[in-house]
Amino acid sequence: MVHKLLLLTRENCHYQTLLQQLALPELMLLDDAPTAICEADIWLAEPALAAPLLPLAHKLQWLQSTFAGVDKLLTSKSRQDYQLSNIKGIFGPLMSEYVFGYLLAHCRQQQLYREQQQQGLWAPAAYRSLQNQTMLLLGTGSIGSHIATTAQHFGMKTIGMNRSGRPTASFHQIISEIELAQALADADVVVNTLPASAATTEILSAERLNCLKQGALLFNIGRGSAINLLALHELLLSRPDVTAILDVFPQEPLPANHDLWRQNNAIITPHISAPSFPKQVVQIFADNYQRWRCQQPLQYLVDFNRGY
Amino acid sequence: MVHKLLLLTRENCHYQTLLQQLALPELMLLDDAPTAICEADIWLAEPALAAPLLPLAHKLQWLQSTFAGVDKLLTSKSRQDYQLSNIKGIFGPLMSEYVFGYLLAHCRQQQLYREQQQQGLWAPAAYRSLQNQTMLLLGTGSIGSHIATTAQHFGMKTIGMNRSGRPTASFHQIISEIELAQALADADVVVNTLPASAATTEILSAERLNCLKQGALLFNIGRGSAINLLALHELLLSRPDVTAILDVFPQEPLPANHDLWRQNNAIITPHISAPSFPKQVVQIFADNYQRWRCQQPLQYLVDFNRGY
Repeated sequence: MVHKLLLLTRENCHYQTLLQQLALPELMLLDDAPTAICEADIWLAEPALAAPLLPLAHKLQWLQSTFAGVDKLLTSKSRQDYQLSNIKGIFGPLMSEYVFGYLLAHCRQQQLYREQQQQGLWAPAAYRSLQNQTMLLLGTGSIGSHIATTAQHFGMKTIGMNRSGRPTASFHQIISEIELAQALADADVVVNTLPASAATTEILSAERLNCLKQGALLFNIGRGSAINLLALHELLLSRPDVTAILDVFPQEPLPANHDLWRQNNAIITPHISAPSFPKQVVQIFADNYQRWRCQQPLQYLVDFNRGY
Repeated sequence: MVHKLLLLTRENCHYQTLLQQLALPELMLLDDAPTAICEADIWLAEPALAAPLLPLAHKLQWLQSTFAGVDKLLTSKSRQDYQLSNIKGIFGPLMSEYVFGYLLAHCRQQQLYREQQQQGLWAPAAYRSLQNQTMLLLGTGSIGSHIATTAQHFGMKTIGMNRSGRPTASFHQIISEIELAQALADADVVVNTLPASAATTEILSAERLNCLKQGALLFNIGRGSAINLLALHELLLSRPDVTAILDVFPQEPLPANHDLWRQNNAIITPHISAPSFPKQVVQIFADNYQRWRCQQPLQYLVDFNRGY
């Protein structure tokens, strides 16, 4: 049986080349004609591009997301009559690069030394190593676990928060949400990696944000909805000791006139902590396609009820 | 037998407090009077402060350096009639923080996103992850090995250069100096961790520096003498694709009027990649002191002939 594939990404040309190189058996890559939406049984797609077209996807059986986050496909009215798989395993290392790049730049005072270089000034300053600092990770999935492993390599204590509170490898300690306020007060670095869902919306509320320790660094690389952004902005205004490094926002792009762009103790990046590199995505797709043909269970299947 | 200890550091007060807390048996901490130099049999000292006073150190038997680099005590005319130990094991993690802080800041385009934030501009840019990049480390001792371990954690290929060319754990490949030019041409990131010695002086000569790969990053966290600084400066002028991150220099402080301060593709820091934290140094000293009392071999003894 020949399967018909629809590509829906912002890098379709790149994906086409990679798929043609693989020459997957019995897979026909449909062209961009609107009729393709009705004909394809397999979609390889970015969630935000796929979501509005799903009502027309009469033959859709399997959608392989090119992203980890599939919340755009999981609204209350969304279809659930197909198999949805996402991307796992490739984002942890990229997000670790992002987190430790900014964390080390901060702890090792790169900005201070940049300013001193401009003045030709040789002046060593005291600092605190990452060793023995505490990192709290919200989310203990493949991304959170990978970042925790990096943190342990740098001698940090790692605490993870998940729903169950059950122990998980790569964390020194696991807590559940009821212990979150205390954990926020104890952590030197807080990293949110949670997916968007009803349970995670504004999990970092105004009240909890106020618990942050003196000098804390707060990363958001999960979803913008996890933080009450207005409360965070107020906190940053009143507490210059806190630094927020934000890669995701409730509305993306963050509007050009938003005051947060000009907040000194906020670092804003345009959702770049872990882009989907097409080559890696296509490898995962190819592997799943072979499973699909053999009627084996797909890897990284999303549970429509849990939301990840 | 009571031993008499002379402290010679820029943080004597801090060291005094730490030593008093430990209350090491039969150890008398001499005060700062000039006569202490003649009386002490044990010195806990910074090499540069100790070197000019050694001719007066009539009772010196053991000098515990507070630094890893002891080249100031190893000139051709230096005394060799005492035991010299240095500090090992604590600098690798600190230097890894330094190297990966600057490496990730560069690869993940922190400067670009800082500028875009100032303009309120949301514009993701393409980048290359550390994964599959090649790091060449000059020196495969405890510092080089630790940095290589971090590099492997980030998915990099690690090549080490040492005298023997013998395989060493934490490196994918080991080369000897005759293969250095080719290795420089292949490496995305080059990190010098070598100590100062006749064999390492200007090991990165003008000719070898010219081998550096397009877009290469060159770190010097070993000793300034390892690089022909004039040749490096000329290279940076003619090749804006190369970036040098320099923490050590032939003359320190780097003179305020040196042109390198204003070189755009040079990052200059004031020898801060791995300061000796007194608490860690005192732990190593205390351990060695117990060995000394029991006439056991000291840890981290320096070979006056090898120079490390």
